[in-house]
Amino acid sequence: MKSKILKKAIKAPDFLNDPAEYNKSFSRGLKIELNGSTILEISGTASINERGKSIHIGNFSAQAKRTFDNLTALLGSAGAGWHDVVKTRCYLRNMRDYDKFNKYRNQFYKKQKLALFPASICVEAGLCRPELLVEIEATAILGKK
Amino acid sequence: MKSKILKKAIKAPDFLNDPAEYNKSFSRGLKIELNGSTILEISGTASINERGKSIHIGNFSAQAKRTFDNLTALLGSAGAGWHDVVKTRCYLRNMRDYDKFNKYRNQFYKKQKLALFPASICVEAGLCRPELLVEIEATAILGKK
Amino acid sequence: MKSKILKKAIKAPDFLNDPAEYNKSFSRGLKIELNGSTILEISGTASINERGKSIHIGNFSAQAKRTFDNLTALLGSAGAGWHDVVKTRCYLRNMRDYDKFNKYRNQFYKKQKLALFPASICVEAGLCRPELLVEIEATAILGKK
Repeated sequence: MKSKILKKAIKAPDFLNDPAEYNKSFSRGLKIELNGSTILEISGTASINERGKSIHIGNFSAQAKRTFDNLTALLGSAGAGWHDVVKTRCYLRNMRDYDKFNKYRNQFYKKQKLALFPASICVEAGLCRPELLVEIEATAILGKK
Repeated sequence: MKSKILKKAIKAPDFLNDPAEYNKSFSRGLKIELNGSTILEISGTASINERGKSIHIGNFSAQAKRTFDNLTALLGSAGAGWHDVVKTRCYLRNMRDYDKFNKYRNQFYKKQKLALFPASICVEAGLCRPELLVEIEATAILGKK
Repeated sequence: MKSKILKKAIKAPDFLNDPAEYNKSFSRGLKIELNGSTILEISGTASINERGKSIHIGNFSAQAKRTFDNLTALLGSAGAGWHDVVKTRCYLRNMRDYDKFNKYRNQFYKKQKLALFPASICVEAGLCRPELLVEIEATAILGKK
């Protein structure tokens, strides 16, 4: 059996700029269609805006909100939502923000009315810009529409 | 071709508590069935017990044992085992425990009689509780039974 | 529908040694064939040579080159290339090397003539040997040949 794979870049230009704008070689996400299923691989996403500028400097909860909103926009542009996400990997600059992170995520997923939470990991790690306090990458799997 | 996806939470309540008990919005793992295959995404797992309490404080090898035992229980609850694991991501609080980590993993996989070792990465990173010394997340892929 | 899964280890012995040589229980990568598709899970890969020795000590760009070359060799041994990679996870010992990392990756992907860049994340984390400055793991998905 031979299977065909279709891949394309995921973009949400109203929320995040294209990494090529600052000369970076990665996609915000990839949509991979194979065998009647779709896998989304979303890149590490943080509190940046449509011009690629860091926003909400110094405010963890506002950065968490923007990060989740950016991820939602990327998922949405591929016809997906949070109920399709199977794993998130969350990186905090300071683990002392862990309680704030959980508080915001609880609220956010509640609004999303998630019946089943994604698998997840959260570790402390340095991020690519000193002012960013949280970064999240995600994998989603969904049935073909 | 339209494909149906079935997702459910992976639990091993005799080993690890439900994250909801401490008001966290993630699943210990997800079982995703699609196209006659099954993917397991297991969350970051550490040396905690069935009440969610950190155990074996200060003892790296005992924490490693409990972490692998917790992962085994999660895999088992989804009808899987270590021979189904295709990647582990291992996070150590202190890379000086790397030799102890490898020593324990060698022993553990030997007991599991693994013919083929998972792909893996091991980095040093801060974990969600200061007393935890090792955390591991895993992805498994298996044929439908 | 029952699906059969074939798994085998990915090796590139002219570039990287087998982890068993230094008594480590992981594979350089796994090739997983299922449902007419192939998934490659490549382990964390760094600037080491065919004898498992760290090379290019102190030279970030040379280490980046060797890391990408090792990954290329692992992909190639499984009949794949960079156009099949859907996600990379990049770990830098010092985020101050981030510009050098991007510069090298830009050049490398340009030479590979990638039409679509993988999704990616890059964080700062301690690596398993103090002299290693960059480590990358990758996931690839490809159609059956």
